[in-house]
Amino acid sequence: MTTLSIAMLGAGRIGKVHAAAIAATPNARLVAVADAFVEPAETMAAEHDAEVRTIDAIMAADDVDAIFITTPTDLHADLIEQGVRSGKKVFCEKPIDLDVQRVRDCLAVVAAEGGVLMVGFNRRFDPNFQTLRARIDAGDIGTVEMVTITSRDPGPPPLEYMMRSGGLFKDMTIHDFDMARYMLGEEPVAVSAFGSALVDPAITGPIGVDSAAITLVTASGTMAQISNSRRATYGYDQRIEVHGSAGMARAENLHGNTVEVAGAGGYTRAPLMNFFLERYMPAYQLEVQTFVDAALDGGPVAPTGDDGLQALIIAEAATRSHLERRVVDLSEI
Amino acid sequence: MTTLSIAMLGAGRIGKVHAAAIAATPNARLVAVADAFVEPAETMAAEHDAEVRTIDAIMAADDVDAIFITTPTDLHADLIEQGVRSGKKVFCEKPIDLDVQRVRDCLAVVAAEGGVLMVGFNRRFDPNFQTLRARIDAGDIGTVEMVTITSRDPGPPPLEYMMRSGGLFKDMTIHDFDMARYMLGEEPVAVSAFGSALVDPAITGPIGVDSAAITLVTASGTMAQISNSRRATYGYDQRIEVHGSAGMARAENLHGNTVEVAGAGGYTRAPLMNFFLERYMPAYQLEVQTFVDAALDGGPVAPTGDDGLQALIIAEAATRSHLERRVVDLSEI
Amino acid sequence: MTTLSIAMLGAGRIGKVHAAAIAATPNARLVAVADAFVEPAETMAAEHDAEVRTIDAIMAADDVDAIFITTPTDLHADLIEQGVRSGKKVFCEKPIDLDVQRVRDCLAVVAAEGGVLMVGFNRRFDPNFQTLRARIDAGDIGTVEMVTITSRDPGPPPLEYMMRSGGLFKDMTIHDFDMARYMLGEEPVAVSAFGSALVDPAITGPIGVDSAAITLVTASGTMAQISNSRRATYGYDQRIEVHGSAGMARAENLHGNTVEVAGAGGYTRAPLMNFFLERYMPAYQLEVQTFVDAALDGGPVAPTGDDGLQALIIAEAATRSHLERRVVDLSEI
Amino acid sequence: MTTLSIAMLGAGRIGKVHAAAIAATPNARLVAVADAFVEPAETMAAEHDAEVRTIDAIMAADDVDAIFITTPTDLHADLIEQGVRSGKKVFCEKPIDLDVQRVRDCLAVVAAEGGVLMVGFNRRFDPNFQTLRARIDAGDIGTVEMVTITSRDPGPPPLEYMMRSGGLFKDMTIHDFDMARYMLGEEPVAVSAFGSALVDPAITGPIGVDSAAITLVTASGTMAQISNSRRATYGYDQRIEVHGSAGMARAENLHGNTVEVAGAGGYTRAPLMNFFLERYMPAYQLEVQTFVDAALDGGPVAPTGDDGLQALIIAEAATRSHLERRVVDLSEI
Repeated sequence: MTTLSIAMLGAGRIGKVHAAAIAATPNARLVAVADAFVEPAETMAAEHDAEVRTIDAIMAADDVDAIFITTPTDLHADLIEQGVRSGKKVFCEKPIDLDVQRVRDCLAVVAAEGGVLMVGFNRRFDPNFQTLRARIDAGDIGTVEMVTITSRDPGPPPLEYMMRSGGLFKDMTIHDFDMARYMLGEEPVAVSAFGSALVDPAITGPIGVDSAAITLVTASGTMAQISNSRRATYGYDQRIEVHGSAGMARAENLHGNTVEVAGAGGYTRAPLMNFFLERYMPAYQLEVQTFVDAALDGGPVAPTGDDGLQALIIAEAATRSHLERRVVDLSEI
Repeated sequence: MTTLSIAMLGAGRIGKVHAAAIAATPNARLVAVADAFVEPAETMAAEHDAEVRTIDAIMAADDVDAIFITTPTDLHADLIEQGVRSGKKVFCEKPIDLDVQRVRDCLAVVAAEGGVLMVGFNRRFDPNFQTLRARIDAGDIGTVEMVTITSRDPGPPPLEYMMRSGGLFKDMTIHDFDMARYMLGEEPVAVSAFGSALVDPAITGPIGVDSAAITLVTASGTMAQISNSRRATYGYDQRIEVHGSAGMARAENLHGNTVEVAGAGGYTRAPLMNFFLERYMPAYQLEVQTFVDAALDGGPVAPTGDDGLQALIIAEAATRSHLERRVVDLSEI
Repeated sequence: MTTLSIAMLGAGRIGKVHAAAIAATPNARLVAVADAFVEPAETMAAEHDAEVRTIDAIMAADDVDAIFITTPTDLHADLIEQGVRSGKKVFCEKPIDLDVQRVRDCLAVVAAEGGVLMVGFNRRFDPNFQTLRARIDAGDIGTVEMVTITSRDPGPPPLEYMMRSGGLFKDMTIHDFDMARYMLGEEPVAVSAFGSALVDPAITGPIGVDSAAITLVTASGTMAQISNSRRATYGYDQRIEVHGSAGMARAENLHGNTVEVAGAGGYTRAPLMNFFLERYMPAYQLEVQTFVDAALDGGPVAPTGDDGLQALIIAEAATRSHLERRVVDLSEI
Repeated sequence: MTTLSIAMLGAGRIGKVHAAAIAATPNARLVAVADAFVEPAETMAAEHDAEVRTIDAIMAADDVDAIFITTPTDLHADLIEQGVRSGKKVFCEKPIDLDVQRVRDCLAVVAAEGGVLMVGFNRRFDPNFQTLRARIDAGDIGTVEMVTITSRDPGPPPLEYMMRSGGLFKDMTIHDFDMARYMLGEEPVAVSAFGSALVDPAITGPIGVDSAAITLVTASGTMAQISNSRRATYGYDQRIEVHGSAGMARAENLHGNTVEVAGAGGYTRAPLMNFFLERYMPAYQLEVQTFVDAALDGGPVAPTGDDGLQALIIAEAATRSHLERRVVDLSEI
């Protein structure tokens, strides 16, 4: 097989991103689209010369090698299980589920079936973060001691979305937890998290926060600090800094352009790229390419389902830490 | 007409760039390819679902709205004339010709035929340089007084190419002359140029130089300085800085990534993007889109044939200035 | 009175810094020096045209308006009390004492005597941090939401010093706690701290750590994150970043020089200034000037003894948090 | 001799700078001051515990080892000659004279007397430019090929001053000519200069320009470009960039502080340090220290009188180039 035939389950915003990335991937082809709503499914299918099908038809189809799950979160685990049971290679957007036990059960099914599952932590494929990781691997900063992640969205999603997303830690910080694991190179064992509703006072409920400061610590004593906000007036703030025994390496932000204007008021550069799709487009492209290549070669995929589980466990612990105002050992979860 | 049908005359390196840009332009389609060599023509045609045709067949074809001229330079002027006489809209790579009088004659034909001609000064479409120009237009730096252009290639082209390219000023600096005109907003009236063979002593001949320092001055006394080299170990150095009565604006270089590593030896960032195709890919894309939109709308195109002529006149004057070690008035040319 | 006559109690490293700053302060004069060791006292006295005296003689002297306490920490509180009882204006290096209750008792004496006490948090006088604070006060970033402090020493002090300094939190982080209070503009109510011995495994004992990640939270939910290490190969890393409702402001590091060298390996800038005396010399100068002006004018001094107490309370809570691996409310202390 | 006794000839602005630098130099002492006006002389003398004397008394004095000449330019050459004839070591502000022949005659006297003369090109002592030169000497960028100097004052001096200063090239650019020589490591042989009155239309006369673009070229073909303006709204713009066969090195500007503020309008840093005294204070200090050390040791001083002459020759050639709109060989002067 030289071309991977893919079906898209979910034709919403992130589905479109992946469909475009598939279109730009030489050895991949979108063949089918399923969505609960007819119109977006038909639009995507038309644009990519694919067919609208039901999920069951896709699962049963011989001409579909792999599925991309970009539906609402509550369907993810079921579709993963159905996919691997149908022999499809599976790419699933994060998170697998908001409930840790449900994820464990799902991964047990994947393992039992010998299935292939890749979880959509797109930031691992950002060329700058990959370069950062490569410099660490090359020994440029010695042994990793402290990871500092600044992750601040340009603006909050709709209030309704935030209220039912599982909370900031499972919805937004989960990306940072994955990056912390990726950069630390060692599993965290405890977490301390503080959250506040500073951006929008309308956010309520036990985990209704839009700003957070989180610390992770590993068994060897290395640490990670994460700074989150749902609002950054100057753009999408995405930085990682890693301190090691021999030095420091960091990946800086991407500005909208390279122009700087100087006058009596000082030197002014452009704000940051404002939108995650613009900021991480090269990452989405590389993510799809990586999945496609691995699916065709039969090689291992990463980030794995277990990566998804571990990040969720940290998010669950962070939520508990925030709610109970205490340090939470991950072994509790 | 909602889609522009295009024929590519020349299937070499820059032809491929434009073909790829056409493929990514929604309202354009490559329908035919001509090249003196069969294989590259067939490869490009196959990749883009186009036909290999002779130039004469293309000129006569009803299904070709526009031609892209990416052949060797010595064919440009003839093909432009043939194109406009055949009613094709014409995009031509710079320069139109190395001889000023030949360009004047060619433009007379274009004018007589009421033809459409756009010249490929890709840098005008670089998003950063466009932002720089926009800030000037917005009055952020007041009246322009001095333009400083740093334009240094990562490495020299083949010696043979350099020896028959018309020399550094017509081959490489011509881009900078166009940017100087674009940023000055006023025509230069005189030029002083110094050139040296510092990179490769094998460059010989009257204009065999690979390094240069050039100054342009306008009637009102505004100035432009250009710094050129065929070699920059740290990547493709492309900067423009504009000083005005109220401040300064500049477009900085693009580095390969955003990672910085700090250690006992200091803070190190990545070299610059190394290759003009990588550096200017967004510019090539926007250039093609601009041509296609104008061709479909019947609107004016820019940079025009006259822009090509003016840059060549400056290049000719710079060559003369270098050879005769004197300030040359453009009115001489 | 137009010139403040000062006695230096302690002729060690930091005493010398203050003596030099006094020498450069037009309206101040060093008149006396006391130290347990004869030689450093005589050297300092000779250099500044001052007299070596005993502490008791200084306290009783009519020609001494103010004292600078730069002795070992365990003498600070006693000397403060003796000083204010003798009617001297007092400048004391941080910390007042390692024991919170001792500090409270000392401040009670200062209050009862109506004494003047300024505590040496030199970073408040750094021109860059003052500019940062001024931009916040000017409303440039709206309401403060998150403060991020990176504070990493170029290298550890002698092991013996570290073991008896009260630990990282009271010795080193105490500066950052003061800066966090200064930038937050609101008192922290709880702290979570993690510490590790990553730099030097020879550090032992209950609070023998050389690396730390600390989070502070206030009643309104604003947060501060602090990153500490006793080692930074690239120089003395001192940064503060403040996020607010309307934007972000930060004070960047100071490099050793402004030179950048570019080559095939990238762009390299100088390491940071390596030593706290070099980095904070302008701050020490401004600190002394501020104390002298206030002492002469009879105006209030800041940072006050209470600032010293509050930072120590946070350091005590951080120590407890680290040791007991839990979030500690400051009201416990 | 372990301390150099110095007399200041001229108690104006630059005289004060040097007097302060002398005061901060351990092995130097200001003993006498002369000025045509009584008050500034007395003020400086009082401040530095020196005596007001006549120039003749200073020249005849046994207790004066060296003189600093900071008078108006037209007295420089006479005072240098009188100084060396009186056996004084001489430090003289640039330029030695505005007339090339007068300088040659003066240097002949210095040589005949075996006198010591250092010329005040303060920028050679700027720590950043010295680091830049050191990196070149260390071979970090290979063989020097092109030097680019950006030298733009924050605002013009009084019109009257500009009209009688010998013109921009001899008054302001002369510093850049010296830096070009310092960085090129090879003598220029020709110059091309363009000047305009863009800042203040009231500047008239044959060399009444306030903006300029100059190119120097050496016998081996290396080049230097200089960009000048009497006005820069964003502060005192002082940059040098050097390209070599193996890379590029540059010394960047100094900003007023390190704070950057980010908001919807972008990222804004402080303007540059605005004043040459602030910008070059460390250079003035090092310059005086260097002269004092050499005077005491009997070692050679630099920049020499010949350095002053060479820079003036280039300035004369640049003036001629501007006025006659042609390339001028330095051998003409």
